[in-house]
Amino acid sequence: MTQVIVVNGGSSSGKSGIVRCLQAVLPDPWLAVGTDTLVEAMPASMRASDGGIGFAPDGEVIVGPEFRTLEAAWIAGIAAMARAGARVIVDEVFLGGAYSQRRWREALGELRVLWVGVRCDAAVAAGREVARGDRTIGMAASQAEMVHQGVTYDLEVDTTHAEAMECARTIAAHVE
Amino acid sequence: MTQVIVVNGGSSSGKSGIVRCLQAVLPDPWLAVGTDTLVEAMPASMRASDGGIGFAPDGEVIVGPEFRTLEAAWIAGIAAMARAGARVIVDEVFLGGAYSQRRWREALGELRVLWVGVRCDAAVAAGREVARGDRTIGMAASQAEMVHQGVTYDLEVDTTHAEAMECARTIAAHVE
Amino acid sequence: MTQVIVVNGGSSSGKSGIVRCLQAVLPDPWLAVGTDTLVEAMPASMRASDGGIGFAPDGEVIVGPEFRTLEAAWIAGIAAMARAGARVIVDEVFLGGAYSQRRWREALGELRVLWVGVRCDAAVAAGREVARGDRTIGMAASQAEMVHQGVTYDLEVDTTHAEAMECARTIAAHVE
Amino acid sequence: MTQVIVVNGGSSSGKSGIVRCLQAVLPDPWLAVGTDTLVEAMPASMRASDGGIGFAPDGEVIVGPEFRTLEAAWIAGIAAMARAGARVIVDEVFLGGAYSQRRWREALGELRVLWVGVRCDAAVAAGREVARGDRTIGMAASQAEMVHQGVTYDLEVDTTHAEAMECARTIAAHVE
Repeated sequence: MTQVIVVNGGSSSGKSGIVRCLQAVLPDPWLAVGTDTLVEAMPASMRASDGGIGFAPDGEVIVGPEFRTLEAAWIAGIAAMARAGARVIVDEVFLGGAYSQRRWREALGELRVLWVGVRCDAAVAAGREVARGDRTIGMAASQAEMVHQGVTYDLEVDTTHAEAMECARTIAAHVE
Repeated sequence: MTQVIVVNGGSSSGKSGIVRCLQAVLPDPWLAVGTDTLVEAMPASMRASDGGIGFAPDGEVIVGPEFRTLEAAWIAGIAAMARAGARVIVDEVFLGGAYSQRRWREALGELRVLWVGVRCDAAVAAGREVARGDRTIGMAASQAEMVHQGVTYDLEVDTTHAEAMECARTIAAHVE
Repeated sequence: MTQVIVVNGGSSSGKSGIVRCLQAVLPDPWLAVGTDTLVEAMPASMRASDGGIGFAPDGEVIVGPEFRTLEAAWIAGIAAMARAGARVIVDEVFLGGAYSQRRWREALGELRVLWVGVRCDAAVAAGREVARGDRTIGMAASQAEMVHQGVTYDLEVDTTHAEAMECARTIAAHVE
Repeated sequence: MTQVIVVNGGSSSGKSGIVRCLQAVLPDPWLAVGTDTLVEAMPASMRASDGGIGFAPDGEVIVGPEFRTLEAAWIAGIAAMARAGARVIVDEVFLGGAYSQRRWREALGELRVLWVGVRCDAAVAAGREVARGDRTIGMAASQAEMVHQGVTYDLEVDTTHAEAMECARTIAAHVE
């Protein structure tokens, strides 16, 4: 039985929409948590500090050592939720590419994980970033390729031409 | 010179994304207001009362007489903003179809208006409604056709297969 | 009959809470609009541009000429809403003090207006700004006195020790 | 060293404001999670279903068995985050009073916990609920006493007359 679904993709690639559709189409209730949940849980000061997370004017995300420390504990906690019986969807942005995946893989250990990559053409994602109106412009383009560097998946979907619901159904078909 | 752009479409048809892209691609600054702005300006009690606005379990929107009265003054005020020199994009849901358009047309009078219809396949809009996660399920499907009944446009775009940014560029090309 | 209530106060002084309570306690339905509504209606680019609105690192708000132009049309439009029969509460931050009030006074002309000042001790407002968690730190302190410079009121309330609901009832007692 | 701070109080008692102030005044970075985080992580359908969480018209919160199951795993996961080295503030609403506390106490086990009760006069909390404008009316009043039934604390604060920042400083003085 699949216990964790890790969905990785760049900003404005459509991950969160896919995750909400997944929660709607999967027969069991799944918890959905992710990078956004973690950032919101951090002190406000860390969203703009040297030790925390910052957004460069061109949309690049800069993450400091204190962020990495809290994140490690966060990942361990999410893994523990799954071990305690919750089925969990993780909505992630692997800013460190393969390195980010390794951290999750080690924490998730023996749990049965479905690794999903969400692709989106950089120019299309950049347009959606403008349409959303609540993101720092430039993040979509700068992350589109970077987050997939060296990452391996069980399954990839591409939102450039496919709807979130369609991608969710494809993923759901791989959940055991 | 186009003074007002009225963008009409059902819930989850992608209107607001198009409007934000329009504001980004148009060379001059345009104000964007709409049904959501009005609903937020109403007393909280009117969003659930007999005289106000309500949401039936199937997503149907029910609007009462007190809502209509405040809305009439609202429309007059938006028209006055345009007469006072602001270029205004109106992000609307014509729940009353042709009747809704007539009310706006009368208020806008001599102003130069570009009427834009935003279409989206009902099933696709329903999927996007799930993906957004913050709307009453059923609104997208129930409004998809209804809001266009008897309405006439200068221009129609369809978000079923086109991106918001693409639709915005098409509309912008018609702005004088 | 009072047609417009203008509520002026600095960021985190508690204006918006008072306005929502006012809408709840006043027997008739009143529309509530304000600076936040206008900022949201602006193009995203203007919230960070030379011609628009900007937030200095210490929380100071900088407003450019293009913002002032759209704002003038906005004010004219709100006045027109009131003339068209809507009772309107305006939730404002008079960054220009007496000058801001004069602009509104001229636009509102013959309408019957209740001018309300919302005071809050600067240190208390600064604490509430931290508690809210969604505002640029420093705005509360920098605006606390400034927005009242040279402004005249029919009525002043102070949220340092009084609840929003209590202030709303005081104001409602002055509405005719 | 205090590893977890559990802050319990009714809706609109001011817990979340206190938690944000705590994060600002505590010298180390603390993660803040809570009931709201969990509800957001649930499938949308569970927020309105028999097995999930529901809001009665009078503001009463009804929680079903599926919610309880996911919540148990959630609690285990938060405890694991603290064991993995994150200092965690838990922003909770003990709808089950002493029973809710027992669940957390068992999960937190050997961790050093500071239990904090946030009180607020029911009528004052009800007024703030109106002022916030985004909560189901009635929750504040119905939860004000209920959530404290049989719960024991290391420390209690009362927001009826004290500011969030003031309460946060009182709590911070008890953190080791």
